[in-house]
Amino acid sequence: MHLLSNEEFTMRLRRVGELRYHDKHPYHVRMHEGKLSPTQLRAWVANRFYYQQNIPVKDALILSKLPTREERRDWIQRIIDHDGREGNEGGIEAWIRLGEAVDIPREEMLDERHVLPAVRFAVDAYVNFCRLQPWPVAVASSLTELFAPVLITQRIAVFERLYPWIRPEGLEYFQARLHQAPRDADHGLELVLRECKDRREQEQAIAALNFKCDVLWAILDALGLAFPNEAN
Amino acid sequence: MHLLSNEEFTMRLRRVGELRYHDKHPYHVRMHEGKLSPTQLRAWVANRFYYQQNIPVKDALILSKLPTREERRDWIQRIIDHDGREGNEGGIEAWIRLGEAVDIPREEMLDERHVLPAVRFAVDAYVNFCRLQPWPVAVASSLTELFAPVLITQRIAVFERLYPWIRPEGLEYFQARLHQAPRDADHGLELVLRECKDRREQEQAIAALNFKCDVLWAILDALGLAFPNEAN
Repeated sequence: MHLLSNEEFTMRLRRVGELRYHDKHPYHVRMHEGKLSPTQLRAWVANRFYYQQNIPVKDALILSKLPTREERRDWIQRIIDHDGREGNEGGIEAWIRLGEAVDIPREEMLDERHVLPAVRFAVDAYVNFCRLQPWPVAVASSLTELFAPVLITQRIAVFERLYPWIRPEGLEYFQARLHQAPRDADHGLELVLRECKDRREQEQAIAALNFKCDVLWAILDALGLAFPNEAN
Repeated sequence: MHLLSNEEFTMRLRRVGELRYHDKHPYHVRMHEGKLSPTQLRAWVANRFYYQQNIPVKDALILSKLPTREERRDWIQRIIDHDGREGNEGGIEAWIRLGEAVDIPREEMLDERHVLPAVRFAVDAYVNFCRLQPWPVAVASSLTELFAPVLITQRIAVFERLYPWIRPEGLEYFQARLHQAPRDADHGLELVLRECKDRREQEQAIAALNFKCDVLWAILDALGLAFPNEAN
């Protein structure tokens, strides 16, 4: 097993997204075709919120493992992006407003009453992965950010055109991610390319990205099972 | 065992500092009496740096456990204070400059060659305590901040007067802590008072603060053993 060049390695990572990123899941395909009922779309928003709320948690766990303050300085921005700071409410608040824009009251988002058990298990598995794995592997699992910007660009257009009942102020989360995700992906990829120094480590990074795609996929599996098409 | 009032509880916490804070350790007493040799003072600076470097690590672990983004938003400032941001180099860099001000080259600080095994064990024990304990207990262990400002005020004066060979730009770390520590102590104390809802939890918080004093004390024990007076 030879060491992959940075180009080969990056291509292998990108290939994970082509095969397994959640845009290929039937629930997601139907979302972007405008075919989800309001109930199904609300269920997606409320369940995905459990994932959103855990992003700063997994990022704090990765932060605790990064070896130098220079690396922490870059990584900490992810936590600030989601938790917000004075004058910028951040991604978690923006997702709560997406909930409000589809008529899920704030308190119903925060008390997690809509969160399905399998969604909780998948997201908790992701947090524990970041808690327990070596930091370059945990960072590799974040590289779904590589595939996010294209999908989010589509999603903004889809929501505006195919779900006109969603109030437009709910889309701010996605607009912010359009510039945050590429920056995060560049930084994450740079760390992974630098830290994976033999083929075994490269394969672990690829496996970590597959694992993360499984997490996102499992969220949609749970939604598809709980909110099937015929029920609407 | 009755629940302690906020006043009684705060007094019990402060009593820990009166009995066991490291200002009472012989090595520290001699430091503030101006009696440490340059070798002994350098050893303190280089070993204490291992503690300083681990502050953002333990704070990231606590961050990962805090239940809401509001609490994380406050706590994250501790990490930024130590790691720095653009335009503010932060506490770790300031401590490296303290090292330079006592003639320890930057690379000798960073490669940890001067760090004694027992110092490493004590600091690692503190990080693991914050990793493994419930977050209110981990927060309680940070409350040595309650006792720090008085000591740091004295230390700035002591270093200026009794160790004139320390270049004054080395004291910036302590000057910054003069306003950071009281803010951190207030926030930490507020969380501990709020979260410890029965006497058992209050006693756990007091025990956590005792544990933290043991950590700081053990650092000085290791220094006293490795750099005894007669050796200078």
